[in-house]
Amino acid sequence: MKIVVLKFGGTSVGTISKIKIVADIIAGYKRKKFSVIVVSSAMSGVTNELIKKSEAISGNFSDAEYDVLVSSGEQIACSLIAGRLIHLGYNARSWLAWQIPILTQGIHKNSRIYDINKKKIFNYLKKGGVPIITGFQGINENERVSTIGRGGSDASAILLAKFLKAQRCIIYTDVEGVYTTDPNKLSRARKIKEISYEEMLEMASLGAKVMQPVSIQDARLNRINIEVKSSFIKKPGTLITKRKNIINNKIITGISSTQNDSKVSLIGVKDKPGVAASIFKPLSKNSINVDMVVQNISANGKETDLTFTIKTEDLNKTKKIVKANKDIKFRKLLLKKNVSKISIIGVGMITTPGVTFRMFQTLAKNKINIQVISTSEIKISVLIDKKNTKKALIALHREFKLDD
Amino acid sequence: MKIVVLKFGGTSVGTISKIKIVADIIAGYKRKKFSVIVVSSAMSGVTNELIKKSEAISGNFSDAEYDVLVSSGEQIACSLIAGRLIHLGYNARSWLAWQIPILTQGIHKNSRIYDINKKKIFNYLKKGGVPIITGFQGINENERVSTIGRGGSDASAILLAKFLKAQRCIIYTDVEGVYTTDPNKLSRARKIKEISYEEMLEMASLGAKVMQPVSIQDARLNRINIEVKSSFIKKPGTLITKRKNIINNKIITGISSTQNDSKVSLIGVKDKPGVAASIFKPLSKNSINVDMVVQNISANGKETDLTFTIKTEDLNKTKKIVKANKDIKFRKLLLKKNVSKISIIGVGMITTPGVTFRMFQTLAKNKINIQVISTSEIKISVLIDKKNTKKALIALHREFKLDD
Repeated sequence: MKIVVLKFGGTSVGTISKIKIVADIIAGYKRKKFSVIVVSSAMSGVTNELIKKSEAISGNFSDAEYDVLVSSGEQIACSLIAGRLIHLGYNARSWLAWQIPILTQGIHKNSRIYDINKKKIFNYLKKGGVPIITGFQGINENERVSTIGRGGSDASAILLAKFLKAQRCIIYTDVEGVYTTDPNKLSRARKIKEISYEEMLEMASLGAKVMQPVSIQDARLNRINIEVKSSFIKKPGTLITKRKNIINNKIITGISSTQNDSKVSLIGVKDKPGVAASIFKPLSKNSINVDMVVQNISANGKETDLTFTIKTEDLNKTKKIVKANKDIKFRKLLLKKNVSKISIIGVGMITTPGVTFRMFQTLAKNKINIQVISTSEIKISVLIDKKNTKKALIALHREFKLDD
Repeated sequence: MKIVVLKFGGTSVGTISKIKIVADIIAGYKRKKFSVIVVSSAMSGVTNELIKKSEAISGNFSDAEYDVLVSSGEQIACSLIAGRLIHLGYNARSWLAWQIPILTQGIHKNSRIYDINKKKIFNYLKKGGVPIITGFQGINENERVSTIGRGGSDASAILLAKFLKAQRCIIYTDVEGVYTTDPNKLSRARKIKEISYEEMLEMASLGAKVMQPVSIQDARLNRINIEVKSSFIKKPGTLITKRKNIINNKIITGISSTQNDSKVSLIGVKDKPGVAASIFKPLSKNSINVDMVVQNISANGKETDLTFTIKTEDLNKTKKIVKANKDIKFRKLLLKKNVSKISIIGVGMITTPGVTFRMFQTLAKNKINIQVISTSEIKISVLIDKKNTKKALIALHREFKLDD
């Protein structure tokens, strides 16, 4: 049995006519003799409407009832898709998470799937049926409806692919795939044909919001090949797979950039154990998301400089918290708005020397000053003035042959 | 344990502010130390919206998927009610039909509840919980979602009252109770304090559309006391109970009338077995609802006259079908539009002689001609000219002391 899992996001099933298109896409795979498992999100807008209702009922709406409420959205979408496939003459039916069941652990609103009973779905596939399965949900040990947190229906699809040993998991969405950089920021951005899980993880956490990192991580751990493609445009998407499967002569796969960042530098911090924790703990408590953190070695063994970036909207709050913190001593606090983080990502840099140099040289040639540098195995990030973002993107995109 | 079942219809939970009122009503019963079971319909309008979607998907939408689709409506309402009660500090939760389970038999869209597993709900009640149960649905032998046909959530409530041995089942709706006659037709209509199942059955099938006859019949068979009352106005409603419980010195409990009826008479029909069946079978096949049927004994043993009423909108179709029917011979076909059926209903007439006479005399005094008469144990119906409907209602309402 060649099993393929097709996952459709909220915009892909956002209207009746789009649901008809989705049914046609599914039918296409059936004609190609695939055993098809479908996972659907709620029609776009439906979940938000339901959440609004819950907020009108209570400012502190029960998490357990929230799960019952919003899970109805996927139920509606799945019955409509199944109904359309039946209309087209296919053997299809909706499967609600409790009917399979899809088992979850953890708290309401933020559960995680830990097991899927594959027996019923497998038998149904053997009879030629097309199961249309509610994404984003399961049932917990008390047989109550639970929704899974970040990753949502993508995670449902990837885990179904895992438990039913699917050849591929195709994520249908409203973008055509993963791009070398944000197409809204740079028109020369190109769709990436193949990308490794690791690169995708770096791309995702850096702003290429195609899939949640948690889902990519699930796919990586379970070696599920994922294709991200558009449900509206008939074109190949982006394959997310393990490094070995990728034939790619490019050193850099993609470039990402952030905006609305601010830089916070603590100059002359006492260099002793626990100093970083004492700075970041109160920030985390106040839901301030710290991105890049750079600390140089201490020149004199006594003092060091610590720099980190935050969203500019958190700048005032951060300033207050740092100043009010009696646990840390420093000589000076420097704050700078309007910085941008540019990252180049690619597994190719592991085996190719001189990538860092090429990046810095390219920026220097364009008279762009680098304020902070941070590197990982497959990523180099620099902090620059926000006004230079586009210039940097253009130059680096060309330098690393992503324009072609 | 004093158990009470509270059922809320679609208009009672039609908006967020109405759901808050519903939660307050439930809280009132909890304060009075009742063990409360709640059954809810979908928020008014929601089910129709879902049906519209299904019709846009297919002109012949799958019945099984229809059930999955529309059952989401009750799920939404129940989670919101539960969420509100939790907000108010009560121990409440939604119970979806599959979680109990409520078991059904029969075809999709028109199943019937045959068993309810009372164990989980009973345990939950013992712990002081308020179960908010999805009406109108259950699961069938294949563990698929099924919706129950006519009677809907009322039937769910009545059967929950039966299986959990509730003292009373209260149907909260958008009317204040059952009236002596339609208040829209006669301002002198009075709310009935107590009515027997049998009278209610006659009232319901005759146009007092408070509850579906099938639900009243369920309540009668299981001796469930039902109270019908408004969820918006704090006033006693109407108690539907067995005859013996009723202290009522009125002979007639209510008067109902129809409108837009037409009368069809077949004169000189061959009087032989099967003649009625051969007339009504093709009408039923064409979804024409035949109401009153009157056939006199044959004077000469060979021929008889047959009269029946239908909705006026079906008159042309009926005419064609009767004329095309080769199985029946008759001398003449008489058609008459603009007739109205007036019925007086009351268990009191069983023990009180002369009720029929009083009805006919009252109509005669008011110069209203009676075209057809039909009687049952607790009901007398007559067919009159539609233009005399109001006059007849006023006169009979006064004659049988229903004005007081």
